[in-house]
Amino acid sequence: MSPSDLEWKGYAVDDTEHWDQPKLIDFEPKRFEDYDVDVKIEYCGVCGSDVHTVTGGWGKPMLPVIPGHEITGRVVEVGPKVTEFKVGDRVGVGAQVCSCFECVPCKTDNENYCLKAVNTYNAKYPNGDIAQGGYSTAIRAHERYVFPIPNELPLEQASPMLCAGLTVYSPLVRNGAGPGKRVGIVGIGGLGHFAIQFAKALGAEVVVFSHSPDKDKDARELGASEFVHTAEGFVKGWEGKLDLIICTVDVSKGIPLEDLMSTLNVGGRLIMVALPDDNLPPMNSFQFSKNAALLGGSHIGSKKEALEMLDLAVKKGVKAYIELLPMKEAGKALRNVKENNVRYRHVLKMDI
Amino acid sequence: MSPSDLEWKGYAVDDTEHWDQPKLIDFEPKRFEDYDVDVKIEYCGVCGSDVHTVTGGWGKPMLPVIPGHEITGRVVEVGPKVTEFKVGDRVGVGAQVCSCFECVPCKTDNENYCLKAVNTYNAKYPNGDIAQGGYSTAIRAHERYVFPIPNELPLEQASPMLCAGLTVYSPLVRNGAGPGKRVGIVGIGGLGHFAIQFAKALGAEVVVFSHSPDKDKDARELGASEFVHTAEGFVKGWEGKLDLIICTVDVSKGIPLEDLMSTLNVGGRLIMVALPDDNLPPMNSFQFSKNAALLGGSHIGSKKEALEMLDLAVKKGVKAYIELLPMKEAGKALRNVKENNVRYRHVLKMDI
Repeated sequence: MSPSDLEWKGYAVDDTEHWDQPKLIDFEPKRFEDYDVDVKIEYCGVCGSDVHTVTGGWGKPMLPVIPGHEITGRVVEVGPKVTEFKVGDRVGVGAQVCSCFECVPCKTDNENYCLKAVNTYNAKYPNGDIAQGGYSTAIRAHERYVFPIPNELPLEQASPMLCAGLTVYSPLVRNGAGPGKRVGIVGIGGLGHFAIQFAKALGAEVVVFSHSPDKDKDARELGASEFVHTAEGFVKGWEGKLDLIICTVDVSKGIPLEDLMSTLNVGGRLIMVALPDDNLPPMNSFQFSKNAALLGGSHIGSKKEALEMLDLAVKKGVKAYIELLPMKEAGKALRNVKENNVRYRHVLKMDI
Repeated sequence: MSPSDLEWKGYAVDDTEHWDQPKLIDFEPKRFEDYDVDVKIEYCGVCGSDVHTVTGGWGKPMLPVIPGHEITGRVVEVGPKVTEFKVGDRVGVGAQVCSCFECVPCKTDNENYCLKAVNTYNAKYPNGDIAQGGYSTAIRAHERYVFPIPNELPLEQASPMLCAGLTVYSPLVRNGAGPGKRVGIVGIGGLGHFAIQFAKALGAEVVVFSHSPDKDKDARELGASEFVHTAEGFVKGWEGKLDLIICTVDVSKGIPLEDLMSTLNVGGRLIMVALPDDNLPPMNSFQFSKNAALLGGSHIGSKKEALEMLDLAVKKGVKAYIELLPMKEAGKALRNVKENNVRYRHVLKMDI
């Protein structure tokens, strides 16, 4: 039971065949605990993960599932042990709502890599409660997984930063993006448009790689100093030139992984931040050995990084390119994301 | 023409179908230049690369090819601009004999990653001269690619360090193996038996992963504190426990890559040092995202690292486990390496 008078309703998909037809349902939030914060939702971004989940691309989800993990709103209730928030605070919740709090990752600002992490939706708490996402009236989460939103940042702007933004910010800082470094960003979409801006905001020189030559203008407007159209032979002249690449492309097929790896300098890194349904292109050891390149992954970011990111966004004027829709049009938004038909992020506005 | 009275003869493979039947031939060394050093060969190790090359596993080689890049012997002639060596010096030559000397890698002790590197055999110099390897009477190389061998180290011991040893030493130091770090070594063979010893010599705790349970004793004798038999389910209890893994297994098929990646802590690295003929097992982004693991490669090492390695080998008593054969038995040695039937390195002794 909720101690507040919140309604718990959300747009749920109950059939992966009809993933673009979410229906409004009532749901039971997790049981209220001492460190929990109840958030009345105002906005929720629409992430590629939502599509992977509701289509079954990542495997059969727990149905019905209410997607959404780029959530912003206001605190309406706090548990007795909550110290960080009070009723009325502007806050957000990202792609994670719980972890074990005891393992090495949890104790070293790597809670996003806790092996017992609970995702924001399509997930179960250890006690069996179901976690449902932000295409809904409200969310309840442990205060560690609630982020204060700076006053200077409109909530609809902050929403997509809580997954898309953090997902690129974290590997940028962990892999040394900063002054004197040349960072490649592959793909301009929900993740890529943040990656370009945050890499630039961190002080790096940014080179954008895209298979859409018409995105040259956007890339430069976002902060890129060079735009490389990834047509055949694009790698010529770029061998060994980059320190770090963040690859945001969400479809494995067609990623020119070998060529991209060739553009790295000795010991450079390519970090895949998208999680395509299918396998990466086949690889052999030679692709890694010629420049000691490293291929890596990343999973959202820590709370510490989220707060740094929001602060940097305010200081450097990082902007989410968003297209607002009322929440009842969640299905349309999901379709647009699936079809790569949004510039660059849908944000759903509460209408329940 | 050689300025010395060296004979230039070697055991060459001239047909990949008969790769285990090298025949003694005369050959022409590269043209003598100002920085060149002529080395009369005493020993040459037999490397997996030799097998990949002569069998055509890495593609059709330039025939005839004289393999061998774990070369030791004595200097018999030096060019007029050579400053580092004099006649009579005990020296070695590894898997590289030239580079451009001008690029960023060449100028930053990363000459092993020069894009114009010339391999010790199956390679052409920019002027068209053919590079032939160490199953031969002599080798000529630029002094940068000649390594002084410490007096305390017998030449037959030093030989296999110049490729196998350096190939594992370089990624160990570049990826932080040292006190307080737990390093996994996958596979115990020519490379693996050095990797265990060098990781230990650098101060790391060493865990050996092998699909051969009978290598437990050797692993511990070489310095491992734990031995993990990579049978099904081996990963249980090891998730997130290692900082670095060096994978020396030379066959892609059957490498439990996903499980091994799971044993890394947040941001840990798995470095493939072998170069199997075939592709790595298929991978997807999830395997990288759950712990931000990085998969990388490596290619031999720099001269700076080679000298540090030889010094460490002397100081810490690192030993090559070798089986000596006369050079005329090069074919037998190649077969044994191909069949994984040597403990752990064949070294050929000059008999021409």
